[in-house]
Amino acid sequence: MHDPRLATARVARLATTDPDGRPHLVPIVFALDGDTLYSAVDRKPKRSSTLRRIENARVRPEVTILVDHYEDDWSRLWWIRLRGRARVLDDGEERDRAVELLREKYPQYLADPLEGPVLAVDVAEVRVWEPESI
Amino acid sequence: MHDPRLATARVARLATTDPDGRPHLVPIVFALDGDTLYSAVDRKPKRSSTLRRIENARVRPEVTILVDHYEDDWSRLWWIRLRGRARVLDDGEERDRAVELLREKYPQYLADPLEGPVLAVDVAEVRVWEPESI
Repeated sequence: MHDPRLATARVARLATTDPDGRPHLVPIVFALDGDTLYSAVDRKPKRSSTLRRIENARVRPEVTILVDHYEDDWSRLWWIRLRGRARVLDDGEERDRAVELLREKYPQYLADPLEGPVLAVDVAEVRVWEPESI
Repeated sequence: MHDPRLATARVARLATTDPDGRPHLVPIVFALDGDTLYSAVDRKPKRSSTLRRIENARVRPEVTILVDHYEDDWSRLWWIRLRGRARVLDDGEERDRAVELLREKYPQYLADPLEGPVLAVDVAEVRVWEPESI
């Protein structure tokens, strides 16, 4: 979790599991605090369109997150895969702290009320991949 | 499937489902042919370390693929999510054609024997996301 490439990455991809068992996938922005990763929902979802990723995480909290680097020089590829258990923070101190961390990393969020739930993932497994030549 | 951003994207992320039901996630390079996406395994996996994504797709063929664009100007974000059924091509004409398409798109593959299986995903659902302001 303390790989500097993780903390500085601007985007990651979050995989959750849909009710029908298929994998669900979205890009996320995120902030780290120790072994926990936080990601916000930037607009309060309407009741009728509650975000799938959040509902999925409530029902099946085992999620997978990927941070990767691509370039056409394939000797420079790398990826870091995180697996852990998600918690949905609807309110409370931990959620407030997460919003603060997200706004520090992404000034884009300063203008956003960030009223929706925050997803917290307690990371239990980290796998780093790099070409064997490195 | 005919969004030019899909064909030109150099990298995507593939989510499959592990035997224990958790989502599995890796970056992939890929080529498209009609409604089918192809992705190769660049080194022949040893029998003892058969690639998880391939084994997952054999057992649970419903997979999800994400192509996305990130930049700090969030009005320019977009993502395209593909869902479909995977087939593992161990040999045959379709596999040969897929390898040809992959080598056309990625000259990096010209030096690679590409002896492993090729994953074919017949895409059944495409979801495009862009900020509402666009």
